[in-house]
Amino acid sequence: MTSTPAILLIIAGLDPSGGAGLAADIETAVALGVHPAPVASLITVQDTVNVSASEPLAPELVVDQAEAVLADLPIAAIKLGALGTAAIGSAVADLLARHPDIAVVTDPVLAAAGGGRLAESELIAVYRERLFPLSRLATPNREELALLAPEDGAAELLALGLPACLVTDGEGRGDRIVHELHTDEVHLVANGPRLEGSFHGSGCTLASAIAARIALGDDLEEAIHRAGAFVQKAVAQAYQPGQGQKVPKRW
Amino acid sequence: MTSTPAILLIIAGLDPSGGAGLAADIETAVALGVHPAPVASLITVQDTVNVSASEPLAPELVVDQAEAVLADLPIAAIKLGALGTAAIGSAVADLLARHPDIAVVTDPVLAAAGGGRLAESELIAVYRERLFPLSRLATPNREELALLAPEDGAAELLALGLPACLVTDGEGRGDRIVHELHTDEVHLVANGPRLEGSFHGSGCTLASAIAARIALGDDLEEAIHRAGAFVQKAVAQAYQPGQGQKVPKRW
Repeated sequence: MTSTPAILLIIAGLDPSGGAGLAADIETAVALGVHPAPVASLITVQDTVNVSASEPLAPELVVDQAEAVLADLPIAAIKLGALGTAAIGSAVADLLARHPDIAVVTDPVLAAAGGGRLAESELIAVYRERLFPLSRLATPNREELALLAPEDGAAELLALGLPACLVTDGEGRGDRIVHELHTDEVHLVANGPRLEGSFHGSGCTLASAIAARIALGDDLEEAIHRAGAFVQKAVAQAYQPGQGQKVPKRW
Repeated sequence: MTSTPAILLIIAGLDPSGGAGLAADIETAVALGVHPAPVASLITVQDTVNVSASEPLAPELVVDQAEAVLADLPIAAIKLGALGTAAIGSAVADLLARHPDIAVVTDPVLAAAGGGRLAESELIAVYRERLFPLSRLATPNREELALLAPEDGAAELLALGLPACLVTDGEGRGDRIVHELHTDEVHLVANGPRLEGSFHGSGCTLASAIAARIALGDDLEEAIHRAGAFVQKAVAQAYQPGQGQKVPKRW
């Protein structure tokens, strides 16, 4: 028998194309040597072009899945992906409050890369007021940040009690990918050259890789650096399974 | 960019412990070099000991997820795991009938390894009359076979139009694991010594590995031999993440 790996609890949406969501999270976790415990928050109908429907599960079902796992498995970190509704967000915040010693990485997914909505607008207040103060890190991209903190960006979220905010640059425009880590100071985290094209699930992959590295014991900056390198390699090996975006090769 | 791998469409339940269901299927597919497209049929609340609840999704949502993927991605094979209800089984049979050229491996999941029910009894008739005749292979274990074909076992299913039935021995008792492949004749497929203990998701892993190898172009016997070897290795490296069963290490 092999020794038990670190375990990452993931609460996220399911993308049947396999590009983003739980499949991206599961593939990333095992690639980094971490056992994934996947909990579904919502079921999407989507392909590699865009999302055509998103069906949130009952909040109690989301929480029951997670509590069953938390009662049985020693969870080293939690990654939150798409949550869909304010009711699910609030139920997940209650769950996190019952397990305050586990590090949480929150990827505040509001829309798919193709533009399809994945969250009702009322979820924004739940992120700001409840989920971010219970998280160790949030990973919005610039569009998400503009919706989550229209006044003052990352500093506004830190003032609400979020300890660290990584403004991700995977969907940015410069020649190089440069994420910004905001804590009490601002660090720029360079990830290497930006590759041409649009990649389905690269944001999910980055947040999961950070959470997996935290589950393995990295501090925040180490986790971000190593996760960034993982995503860079996965994107460099991407393939195009359908008519739309490429998928990072995480395996 | 990497060339596009073969793609396996998976329709199965989600197990939040990560031992069985879609996580097992996704991990197995990527370990064998195949892109997984995961569609959820039902959401379970379970840990490594047993299932405490199983919530089937609306049949239309199951089919919509799959049709979005089939319209965008070139699917090389389909693996069916737990389907839960006769309504989902019938909707999936309609789906398969619209895509008759894709090879289907059907794992007729009726109960979790811990004994918890994962299917209503009306689903049995849907397997017999509709899903098996549309499948290339079914992979019941002996307990499932006794429920699916109480009169005459595998021969009864072949008479209904199933072309091949692998009676799996992962949960059997002999010193060696010996699966039985029933087609127009019976082949015994030996998989090596039986390891001590109970393994969560070993049946899912075997069926997914067979489907993945078929997606890669193997004929049926090659696929079964290679999948059996994959499961044997995963079980030999299993770990125990919680209080219950061990989980095969598929990565």
